[in-house]
Amino acid sequence: MNSFNKLSQLQADKSSLLCVGLDSDINKLPAHFPKEINSLLKFNMEIISSTEKYASAFKINFAFYEQYGSEGFDILKKTIDFIGKRNFIIADSKRGDIGNTSAAYAASCFDYFGADAITVAPYMGYDSVEPFLKYKDKLTFVLALTSNPGSSDFQRLEFAGKPLYKHVIEKCLGWGDTDNLGFVTGATHPGDIKGIRDIAPNHFLLIPGVGTQGANISELLEANGNHPCTINVSRDIIYAGSGTDFAEKAADKAKYYKDAFGFKM
Amino acid sequence: MNSFNKLSQLQADKSSLLCVGLDSDINKLPAHFPKEINSLLKFNMEIISSTEKYASAFKINFAFYEQYGSEGFDILKKTIDFIGKRNFIIADSKRGDIGNTSAAYAASCFDYFGADAITVAPYMGYDSVEPFLKYKDKLTFVLALTSNPGSSDFQRLEFAGKPLYKHVIEKCLGWGDTDNLGFVTGATHPGDIKGIRDIAPNHFLLIPGVGTQGANISELLEANGNHPCTINVSRDIIYAGSGTDFAEKAADKAKYYKDAFGFKM
Repeated sequence: MNSFNKLSQLQADKSSLLCVGLDSDINKLPAHFPKEINSLLKFNMEIISSTEKYASAFKINFAFYEQYGSEGFDILKKTIDFIGKRNFIIADSKRGDIGNTSAAYAASCFDYFGADAITVAPYMGYDSVEPFLKYKDKLTFVLALTSNPGSSDFQRLEFAGKPLYKHVIEKCLGWGDTDNLGFVTGATHPGDIKGIRDIAPNHFLLIPGVGTQGANISELLEANGNHPCTINVSRDIIYAGSGTDFAEKAADKAKYYKDAFGFKM
Repeated sequence: MNSFNKLSQLQADKSSLLCVGLDSDINKLPAHFPKEINSLLKFNMEIISSTEKYASAFKINFAFYEQYGSEGFDILKKTIDFIGKRNFIIADSKRGDIGNTSAAYAASCFDYFGADAITVAPYMGYDSVEPFLKYKDKLTFVLALTSNPGSSDFQRLEFAGKPLYKHVIEKCLGWGDTDNLGFVTGATHPGDIKGIRDIAPNHFLLIPGVGTQGANISELLEANGNHPCTINVSRDIIYAGSGTDFAEKAADKAKYYKDAFGFKM
């Protein structure tokens, strides 16, 4: 089963659009965890076990592991293995480089780590994205309109009456199809999501920005309609509790978001 | 000494603008290397030892190591340690994400790996670049006009009469100074380098695209003039030979490029 179908099926099985983001940071773990790298794995395992009935996907932020070098990469691999093939795994690493280099990044994400999807930066154009799209059974989420304040610096520059992020989406639509291509669109821009759905109604959107980043859920849901999307919440779930009951607190928060997002077939 | 001064000093000491790119790939090593990951480290060590008298910098392409997971990251760290503080190390990883995530990538590159410089993708704007620029003694090379064919897909889109890559440069000039900010500009676009020098005359340019990618060296040198730059050559040097004398062949090729680039104080 390809990634598009796998994610669709998991969302239907769990009636959930929720993606839980594992932005795990040693300095933010509950106090009973020793401040050492293995705590990241133990924390992740408890969060995954407690939230997986509400989450149809997990997103792993590579940066938080890379900062610990090879040990961090080892924890990353073990976390992905623990999430397992029964779940959907998005490698959030925002890679992108010239062709032969992107091919190596794709091999890292899909062959070595075994992720179902990746996030990719579009600035370098076709030959930087194509090596990811070559994995036709995987989903490549290209950054379109990101959730952060800096998204307005370049993504909204208008060329020929259209913002850069729409040029990115339209070009990419010629490079892949719904099976292997999706877009990252921040929940912080509900007004733009409607316009994106006009040009890419059937592609999965990976939507971050709910929770700590403050997006309005009902505006988001209205803008997206019933089009395929996975909505990520990271910090607001994984750091919901700071005591020994952190995993239960995370599960409660995951259930809250799952219910708030709703699910329609 | 900050990275700007360190690179300037090394270039003067060695009369060299050459940066050797370690895009080392197990499948391209000379035949006497076993096809195993430790061969990458042995190969890199010989290439570094044989070329360092001609190279004022080394650029390490993270993708080629990441594809082997934690073992690859271990080889990457050992390679960087072998290059050593006496040399200049550019982490070519093209990172960039929302603020707290970019901060973790910066910690990975500068604190864990101890690189002198990094390459960063600008698509996500200010808060994705600023955590790197906060390391004021390090150089952050923001992608401006890259060397690959796909660079024309988005980087040349014109907004208000100026291509996107010039908007990127001009915005970034407000975020950093010559000490902590440089730009990646492909040698494959000599005609554009002149225009870039009009707006950023004193910032270091990291210039890839010479060698396998086919840029014309004399056009590049004329376009850049005497402005600060480091010119990268990867495959054409490290794979110059395919026998047991590969390191000598690489040194000969490195000397060829060092001489071809020239050096003027």
